[in-house]
Amino acid sequence: MKAYELRNDSGAIKLAIVQRPKPSPAAGEVLVRMRAASLNYRDLMISKAPRSAPLVPLCDGAGEVSAVGAGVTHIKVGDRVASTYFQDWISGPLTAAAFRTVLGQAIDGVLAQYVVLKEHGVVRIPEHLSYEEAATLPCAGLTAWQALITEGRIKSGDTVVVMGTGGVSIFALQFALLSGARVIATTGSEAKMDRLRALGASAVINYKTTPEWDKQVLELTGGAGADHVVEVGGAGTLPRSLRAVRYGGFISLIGILGGIGEKFNPGNIITKGVRLQGIFVGSQEMFEDMNRAIARNGLRPVVDRTFQFDEAAAALAFLESGGHFGKICIRL
Amino acid sequence: MKAYELRNDSGAIKLAIVQRPKPSPAAGEVLVRMRAASLNYRDLMISKAPRSAPLVPLCDGAGEVSAVGAGVTHIKVGDRVASTYFQDWISGPLTAAAFRTVLGQAIDGVLAQYVVLKEHGVVRIPEHLSYEEAATLPCAGLTAWQALITEGRIKSGDTVVVMGTGGVSIFALQFALLSGARVIATTGSEAKMDRLRALGASAVINYKTTPEWDKQVLELTGGAGADHVVEVGGAGTLPRSLRAVRYGGFISLIGILGGIGEKFNPGNIITKGVRLQGIFVGSQEMFEDMNRAIARNGLRPVVDRTFQFDEAAAALAFLESGGHFGKICIRL
Amino acid sequence: MKAYELRNDSGAIKLAIVQRPKPSPAAGEVLVRMRAASLNYRDLMISKAPRSAPLVPLCDGAGEVSAVGAGVTHIKVGDRVASTYFQDWISGPLTAAAFRTVLGQAIDGVLAQYVVLKEHGVVRIPEHLSYEEAATLPCAGLTAWQALITEGRIKSGDTVVVMGTGGVSIFALQFALLSGARVIATTGSEAKMDRLRALGASAVINYKTTPEWDKQVLELTGGAGADHVVEVGGAGTLPRSLRAVRYGGFISLIGILGGIGEKFNPGNIITKGVRLQGIFVGSQEMFEDMNRAIARNGLRPVVDRTFQFDEAAAALAFLESGGHFGKICIRL
Amino acid sequence: MKAYELRNDSGAIKLAIVQRPKPSPAAGEVLVRMRAASLNYRDLMISKAPRSAPLVPLCDGAGEVSAVGAGVTHIKVGDRVASTYFQDWISGPLTAAAFRTVLGQAIDGVLAQYVVLKEHGVVRIPEHLSYEEAATLPCAGLTAWQALITEGRIKSGDTVVVMGTGGVSIFALQFALLSGARVIATTGSEAKMDRLRALGASAVINYKTTPEWDKQVLELTGGAGADHVVEVGGAGTLPRSLRAVRYGGFISLIGILGGIGEKFNPGNIITKGVRLQGIFVGSQEMFEDMNRAIARNGLRPVVDRTFQFDEAAAALAFLESGGHFGKICIRL
Repeated sequence: MKAYELRNDSGAIKLAIVQRPKPSPAAGEVLVRMRAASLNYRDLMISKAPRSAPLVPLCDGAGEVSAVGAGVTHIKVGDRVASTYFQDWISGPLTAAAFRTVLGQAIDGVLAQYVVLKEHGVVRIPEHLSYEEAATLPCAGLTAWQALITEGRIKSGDTVVVMGTGGVSIFALQFALLSGARVIATTGSEAKMDRLRALGASAVINYKTTPEWDKQVLELTGGAGADHVVEVGGAGTLPRSLRAVRYGGFISLIGILGGIGEKFNPGNIITKGVRLQGIFVGSQEMFEDMNRAIARNGLRPVVDRTFQFDEAAAALAFLESGGHFGKICIRL
Repeated sequence: MKAYELRNDSGAIKLAIVQRPKPSPAAGEVLVRMRAASLNYRDLMISKAPRSAPLVPLCDGAGEVSAVGAGVTHIKVGDRVASTYFQDWISGPLTAAAFRTVLGQAIDGVLAQYVVLKEHGVVRIPEHLSYEEAATLPCAGLTAWQALITEGRIKSGDTVVVMGTGGVSIFALQFALLSGARVIATTGSEAKMDRLRALGASAVINYKTTPEWDKQVLELTGGAGADHVVEVGGAGTLPRSLRAVRYGGFISLIGILGGIGEKFNPGNIITKGVRLQGIFVGSQEMFEDMNRAIARNGLRPVVDRTFQFDEAAAALAFLESGGHFGKICIRL
Repeated sequence: MKAYELRNDSGAIKLAIVQRPKPSPAAGEVLVRMRAASLNYRDLMISKAPRSAPLVPLCDGAGEVSAVGAGVTHIKVGDRVASTYFQDWISGPLTAAAFRTVLGQAIDGVLAQYVVLKEHGVVRIPEHLSYEEAATLPCAGLTAWQALITEGRIKSGDTVVVMGTGGVSIFALQFALLSGARVIATTGSEAKMDRLRALGASAVINYKTTPEWDKQVLELTGGAGADHVVEVGGAGTLPRSLRAVRYGGFISLIGILGGIGEKFNPGNIITKGVRLQGIFVGSQEMFEDMNRAIARNGLRPVVDRTFQFDEAAAALAFLESGGHFGKICIRL
Repeated sequence: MKAYELRNDSGAIKLAIVQRPKPSPAAGEVLVRMRAASLNYRDLMISKAPRSAPLVPLCDGAGEVSAVGAGVTHIKVGDRVASTYFQDWISGPLTAAAFRTVLGQAIDGVLAQYVVLKEHGVVRIPEHLSYEEAATLPCAGLTAWQALITEGRIKSGDTVVVMGTGGVSIFALQFALLSGARVIATTGSEAKMDRLRALGASAVINYKTTPEWDKQVLELTGGAGADHVVEVGGAGTLPRSLRAVRYGGFISLIGILGGIGEKFNPGNIITKGVRLQGIFVGSQEMFEDMNRAIARNGLRPVVDRTFQFDEAAAALAFLESGGHFGKICIRL
């Protein structure tokens, strides 16, 4: 079968298509014929990091089960499934052990025609989704779900701030609307403002023309501040998020895209009684909760562009350009 | 001004229109020119209970503020407001003291042209609502809100069971949909089935033709059971609700319409780890949360029929007939 | 090896010592040399229920691991462990599937010299506990823990009511004290009152001489009511528990010892906003949390009496007599 | 009556004893004859900040009620009470409005013989406490309570890290022990290590001789990390706290004593799924919960030293020296 590998080529990290033997599922495992994969920002960082051993990249994949190992009872051949980010985070709190099972980082990922995963390392996908759409869920979708639903417990009437048009932010916008919340979105692109409004954002702020977007959020909430900020910019935007959030509000800390150059003053975390909650993807149980919500509401993930199998490098380059709106996929 | 009184007339309880002096707000109080009131099942029971002193009936009213007492800062003349069920339940948990401030029961209610209420005993109403619509919120609306949102914390993808077409059940249906949940409704009337579907119920069960509606709920949830049952029938329907709810599920106990004739076996509360949660209206803080959700989503309460001021007895009779779908109002 | 079996002997259920081959652990399993077992009220009911196939009784056992199967990584030979009630409830909410793995009921139990259990069906026991003490934890200990800690989330200063001197109630008393809560205990035996006080109960009520013990609880709490009632009597005592608990209080529903003869009136569940929470033992994750608390605080379970292996019938008879204070064990 | 004032004296801020008329309580207010006050770190900062109008300093006071205004029903003359930090934070979440009622900062504080407070701006104090002991509760005590109990919801068996020997840290140590948790304390003073052990800390780390105290915490928790860190050092110690806390752990962010010089990297907030929770004193409702716990467990606050009324400047200087262990009081 064909697979991609990240490998060390005289000091430089290269992404190459290789031939690998088709794997077989052991006891408790399933073999998945991958049909689609999806990119995340972490894949960009991983694709540039020094490494000694080759690695099959990407954590997000969807396909159909083509074989199951001994003792597998919940999954059967023919099931349409997606991979879970942590192969060993089933339920309860995250553990250090789960980190040793992260796809496309700690262990081989999903950018291959056939991939062996644990029985509890896959979830069945909603019927109305294509494989490309389902492949967007394991990392970006679940991160947004954990932030707003599992931890944030947003309720109808809340105001949620999302930043930019990356995968997590678009999912957060969709899950917030699904929950009856109101969304204020920020973007640096005039062209994307209309698309955010079309998706249901009730207000969109261009942070380039309105750098003090936190003041705008306060105004839009009658001075009270937002209930929840989905913070994907990290320390760079965190000071503004802290000004934009209400007393006792919730900030989901997800990304560090904006860098960490500014000195961090925790003062108004204290005086406003803010909850700053680190969010790192999620468990299989959360994934199944999310899929149930997606299925029952017919929600469709936003796929910006799908590349062919041999265009993986172009897909990563498109991600790096930052011009996307939603998710980027690769067909297998 | 004109007002209604429930009074003891030679042993029988009568509902009569009387003249009362227009009241004045003391410090911390506001005077409301009531424009609409709404009926609840409890008003039917109160209207038949023996009493020594006259009582202005009804707890649910909406109107505009026509005067404010000394020290009133949050509410001003002209504000459109609704009454709160407990005049003294602002925030935090319910207390015994709050019971001494229940409108239309412990103290005079709202079926009068002018009513004095505490500043923290009113809430501003959403702009898009008529006074009739706003008058449905204080008891039925807030009960459904506390059940599903404050205590139940339902999330998108959950399955909620509502019973019949009374005010609480219709609000529960609406709030569940607003939160991305799926609704299974029961009714004993073939004619009402379509109306429940039109409101968004994804399944409607006629409990007369399908008395084992709990089995239907299990089937509709793939054997798992519902996440939340809004139980307004009490001990009469509780055994079926306990069979229809999932392991670890939630039953909001709200009403005892179905009577309490059946012996209660708590066995499967235990073995299924069910949470049976008593729900009694709610606090001012919950009311404001609810209004925010209603305003931002443009939700409209379902008013079945509005009676004129002098038709209060007819309105109560219509409620008793059980033929309504949603709320019954009186214009003042 | 020697084991007990419950078997159908011409229509009567008999408890007999039999010889069985020593079992071997398969992949993912461990073999435990049982050293002690403990009785629960459910074992009494199971010992009288009609059955077709023989069953090794009891769910609560402790011993040392004598062999491990393939793929076992967390448990090693020599570990001191206890069994978990549900072999397959690791974390998250209870499921119907977990019921098919209840020891001494759905599958063979622990009253045997050697028992094969799943790797995730055992937990390591605190060092300071004897095997007899550790054997009391899986059912009674964990039930009390889930009730007060996992679900009840009691906090320092709360008032907890416990009923009688059975295993769950004594554990509830101990865990409540460990959490800084105050305990009011009820008992029908004058002789046991001092023992309950000696364990730390700040008030003990004899429900035979004070049948209206709920009034006593209200008095002891300044009229407010208890924060948490650990209800092991079921429908028979539930009406009093509902009067004894505070507004917004918590009743853990655990047992139905008191029978279910009284008609159940849910009225004050509603008006007091009470949470009636079914509690059914607990998950492996909760067990490990409990063991950590027991270890760090040096808590010792209360073992009333330990029987020898060939005295199992006498042990069950002692349990049925109701004269015990805490747990009854069998040495293996 | 005599009172202290912070006043602008030709550019310098001076603390002076002045004569003021004895105040009278208006409607909804109570007059308290203050008997003791207590210092917090914020008072040190306030005593140096530029100001135009005079201000009576300090927020923490205890005394007896000597008069009540009209409409006061819960408090009566002779009651022993303490002040609340926010005069207007009764229950529910903190609001911007509450900030305009902070004693000794937004409005006049308690360092005066007679002080008028709102009825809901005082709480009755536990009987076993002296006025000095009770005066330590409003800010430091309640901050520790909110951190560990209201928000942190620690449970028996948890490991809590406290830093140094200031008021909040010592209260946190005491409340953690009261809840059955284990405490690891840090200090920079060899002499204070024994006192921390004597109070019940199961481990004490000298951060001067062991600057990598986070590694020590990991070792003491078997590599898992602490469940809760009471972070009073701010950005200066936060990076170590983030390494010392477990996956999914809780950090109460309370103080910024350690300064904010280090660049803040939120990376492991994300990857460990940490909850960083800002804590700012607490509401009247929390205060009453805390007092109930203190009363029922006979807990005694740790008062390091009590100064006489005319020694307020010396008391502040002692606080600034950092040599204290627990709280510093002033007798009135």
